[in-house]
Amino acid sequence: MPTPTERISERQYWRRVIFDHDTRAGRVFDVVLIIAILGSVATMLLDSLPTLPPSAHRILYGFEWLFTLLFTVEYIARLWCAADRLRYAKSFYGVIDLLALLPTWISLVLPESRFLGVVRVVRVLRIFRILKMTQYMTEASILTQALVAARYKIVVFMFTVLTAVSVVGSLMFLIEGPEHGFTSIPTAMYWAIVTMTTVGYGDISPATTVGRMLASALMILGYGIIAVPTGIVTMELQRSAKRMPRAVSCAKCGRDGHDADAQFCKECGTALPVRGVL
Amino acid sequence: MPTPTERISERQYWRRVIFDHDTRAGRVFDVVLIIAILGSVATMLLDSLPTLPPSAHRILYGFEWLFTLLFTVEYIARLWCAADRLRYAKSFYGVIDLLALLPTWISLVLPESRFLGVVRVVRVLRIFRILKMTQYMTEASILTQALVAARYKIVVFMFTVLTAVSVVGSLMFLIEGPEHGFTSIPTAMYWAIVTMTTVGYGDISPATTVGRMLASALMILGYGIIAVPTGIVTMELQRSAKRMPRAVSCAKCGRDGHDADAQFCKECGTALPVRGVL
Amino acid sequence: MPTPTERISERQYWRRVIFDHDTRAGRVFDVVLIIAILGSVATMLLDSLPTLPPSAHRILYGFEWLFTLLFTVEYIARLWCAADRLRYAKSFYGVIDLLALLPTWISLVLPESRFLGVVRVVRVLRIFRILKMTQYMTEASILTQALVAARYKIVVFMFTVLTAVSVVGSLMFLIEGPEHGFTSIPTAMYWAIVTMTTVGYGDISPATTVGRMLASALMILGYGIIAVPTGIVTMELQRSAKRMPRAVSCAKCGRDGHDADAQFCKECGTALPVRGVL
Amino acid sequence: MPTPTERISERQYWRRVIFDHDTRAGRVFDVVLIIAILGSVATMLLDSLPTLPPSAHRILYGFEWLFTLLFTVEYIARLWCAADRLRYAKSFYGVIDLLALLPTWISLVLPESRFLGVVRVVRVLRIFRILKMTQYMTEASILTQALVAARYKIVVFMFTVLTAVSVVGSLMFLIEGPEHGFTSIPTAMYWAIVTMTTVGYGDISPATTVGRMLASALMILGYGIIAVPTGIVTMELQRSAKRMPRAVSCAKCGRDGHDADAQFCKECGTALPVRGVL
Repeated sequence: MPTPTERISERQYWRRVIFDHDTRAGRVFDVVLIIAILGSVATMLLDSLPTLPPSAHRILYGFEWLFTLLFTVEYIARLWCAADRLRYAKSFYGVIDLLALLPTWISLVLPESRFLGVVRVVRVLRIFRILKMTQYMTEASILTQALVAARYKIVVFMFTVLTAVSVVGSLMFLIEGPEHGFTSIPTAMYWAIVTMTTVGYGDISPATTVGRMLASALMILGYGIIAVPTGIVTMELQRSAKRMPRAVSCAKCGRDGHDADAQFCKECGTALPVRGVL
Repeated sequence: MPTPTERISERQYWRRVIFDHDTRAGRVFDVVLIIAILGSVATMLLDSLPTLPPSAHRILYGFEWLFTLLFTVEYIARLWCAADRLRYAKSFYGVIDLLALLPTWISLVLPESRFLGVVRVVRVLRIFRILKMTQYMTEASILTQALVAARYKIVVFMFTVLTAVSVVGSLMFLIEGPEHGFTSIPTAMYWAIVTMTTVGYGDISPATTVGRMLASALMILGYGIIAVPTGIVTMELQRSAKRMPRAVSCAKCGRDGHDADAQFCKECGTALPVRGVL
Repeated sequence: MPTPTERISERQYWRRVIFDHDTRAGRVFDVVLIIAILGSVATMLLDSLPTLPPSAHRILYGFEWLFTLLFTVEYIARLWCAADRLRYAKSFYGVIDLLALLPTWISLVLPESRFLGVVRVVRVLRIFRILKMTQYMTEASILTQALVAARYKIVVFMFTVLTAVSVVGSLMFLIEGPEHGFTSIPTAMYWAIVTMTTVGYGDISPATTVGRMLASALMILGYGIIAVPTGIVTMELQRSAKRMPRAVSCAKCGRDGHDADAQFCKECGTALPVRGVL
Repeated sequence: MPTPTERISERQYWRRVIFDHDTRAGRVFDVVLIIAILGSVATMLLDSLPTLPPSAHRILYGFEWLFTLLFTVEYIARLWCAADRLRYAKSFYGVIDLLALLPTWISLVLPESRFLGVVRVVRVLRIFRILKMTQYMTEASILTQALVAARYKIVVFMFTVLTAVSVVGSLMFLIEGPEHGFTSIPTAMYWAIVTMTTVGYGDISPATTVGRMLASALMILGYGIIAVPTGIVTMELQRSAKRMPRAVSCAKCGRDGHDADAQFCKECGTALPVRGVL
């Protein structure tokens, strides 16, 4: 039986293997994990094909349980060796790790829920961390920052869009009516969203002259309005990208806004302080 | 019977409750109002479903009148206690408040008009004011300002688009003809709008080779042309956002809206106070 | 019989009425012209409706000839009184004026060509000139300038898109084949354009697994690639808008880039020269 | 029999004709080549039409072999006279030149592969080089540079989109099921891509209320998310265009790519020559 000190060091060893990516064992663990995640997603996709023979479904069902058991063991191991267990369990990846294995267990009671396990595809996002793709992380954070900065504008925009959809949907329900597929206001609102976002399935489409005129107005509105989120995101992206690499200003003249690779101030020619890797 | 002074103070009391959002009674009123608006919209959506039993329609009809009576009382109260009655009646919210209750009353004569009452969903926009979301108001005003600044460009653009739609629609009417669904020039123009905005229902689509070539040209045009409103809005958004957050105003003439790098007031030439890093 | 001098002055009088917009007679002429253009376009749209009774078609046919005769007289009058006749005949509006009346005359021989006359809707663009909407003209010229500046990029982009469409179209013809609607390579290229521009009629759609995977790749490509023209136009718009109102630079420090309403240099505080109305 | 010196000069002569565009013979060669490429592509498109009579197919088949033999001779000639043969064979155009003729030869064994030869349309891109359209080359390189600079952001974005498609696809498979066309998870993912990219064929569309609500959410997401690649490309285009036209390079260290307002080299600190107004 190990002493407390030994157990702690054992936990620390496994923590390095499971959570870090800088030891040989840790890297082997990571590669096996990615293969298992991709394998389990492929299993699920194949299993949903209606053309497979029953024997193939039985084999895939076996694989699914194999992967689920693996992920269950991995989740328990993560919980066991995490420095702060509650923090891991409540973190983004902790929740995803749990959601990835729950559906298969629940399917013992509710068979239909199995396919919800496809949420485990989200675990693949870990690949960015594993491969130390700091460049990707920086870019992802620029994108995230831009979207966060744009959140108020986006909420205002969404609200306006939903209001327009409600009003146009109700009008179309009155104009076209059930005989042309607009069976209720919610259905007409669904049609308005399909039209305004320029998806345009064509499962429901206006047939009267007035309805087509209103639909044309909605399409042109939707076509023009797509400019708004694009403009918002472009502006915020430029801002957040501008904020990112500007950390250095000239010690002599105070000029900032230098390129990431500039070594001298472009205003007065003084040498700029050295910057760390971005 | 209250003296005139008392009545005025009573009006003032109700004005604070109904129009302001900073007293306890005022906030309770706001929450009840939002719930009533959302409830009345939900009632209308449910009532349009064809699958509900007649008894449910009767109950929903009752609810609709309940909400309409509430809104009628509220509208009269707002009119009664508004500081400037005509100004309220002619304001954006005053008109919406009236439009929200008229359809149900009119439906006593014209039953079909009931569903027009869905316009009351617009009243939900009040929520931004109620929750004191000044941040949202600023963002909404940046968006509005950008769209207002872009209005000339948008009119020119729309005019060009409509001209292109007319010409292409007429050509397609000649090329494809009624046997492929292009039954008239207005129908062909409707098809041209559906195509150019990339909605593409597929209820009408070209079947001849020449028609498909013209349609392809129109699609690529539409695909490229969507860049124009996007470019316009992006540009105006950047401009109006640039003007917005400069909190500095001239100490002498009070002029604000200076560029981030301005050192002197552009109106009167006085030196501007130094600003911190943005 | 008028002397040569009188005839010249008569020509000058009519030239002012027809080509200029600053006399009372000229303005009356303009309003009548716009009404006639809109009326003739409406006549043509109505005439194409298949549901009208034959008597209505006869009346509309009469109106069409009335407008055509009017436009013919107008065209001859313009030719007669233009300062430089050849220049007018070869100008944009001169060509459109001719194209607007030719189809009806040609329809005496080729009845089908009548509806080509809808090109006369382009004449409505004159309204911008008539109403002296210089603001619109400036904006239109910013848009045009941006598109002209972007022409090389757009040609390169179009070429790349057409190459992609050819390759994907041929592949889909091989993969899906005639049984799923891809009856020939041109048809498959038409489908590729419909898909890449995100129009998506659904008259032809892939049914095999490989075809759907290729189609998904094309959709995502098309979805991403729409960013390119948008980016190009946004950039050029910003550039051409920037060039427009920047005409003033500070006489003392040479700083330019002042706002349109700036009266003092924002760098050194010197008064800026007065600018004309934009 | 020519001496070695003569053979080399003969190779050099043909190299100038085939690879360069500045001699008369070279320009004739280029024009013939472009015509042959366009002719061979047209042959292939026509040959795929099902409505042609068998005799036309026989003629087109003859043309196809004619062009293929021409291209084969050209490829051998290019290989023979290239300065560095391996480098040509491995270059972009070398690979395309080979791919353009292989399918016809392979079709002797696998008849279906013939139409893959349409890849020879890519050879038309040579036209930019032939016509010495350096302006187009600069613009193409700005576009390429912008896309290369945006590659990390685009990968992150694509990954997020694919994850969303997987999750929504699986949910829709559970909600709608095979009876509404969502026969498997891969099919549902195909539908999710069709919807999210706003293509919207309508071959598969949701029919249940819950499915339509989820579809609406996906559409609005896709509609908003299109802003992200657009924003990325716009930003990178502006950056790469900003870097491009600065013709000034440092007199001491040769570094170029300075900002428009830089007065000193950012690499070595030497003063830069004064530039004219932009």
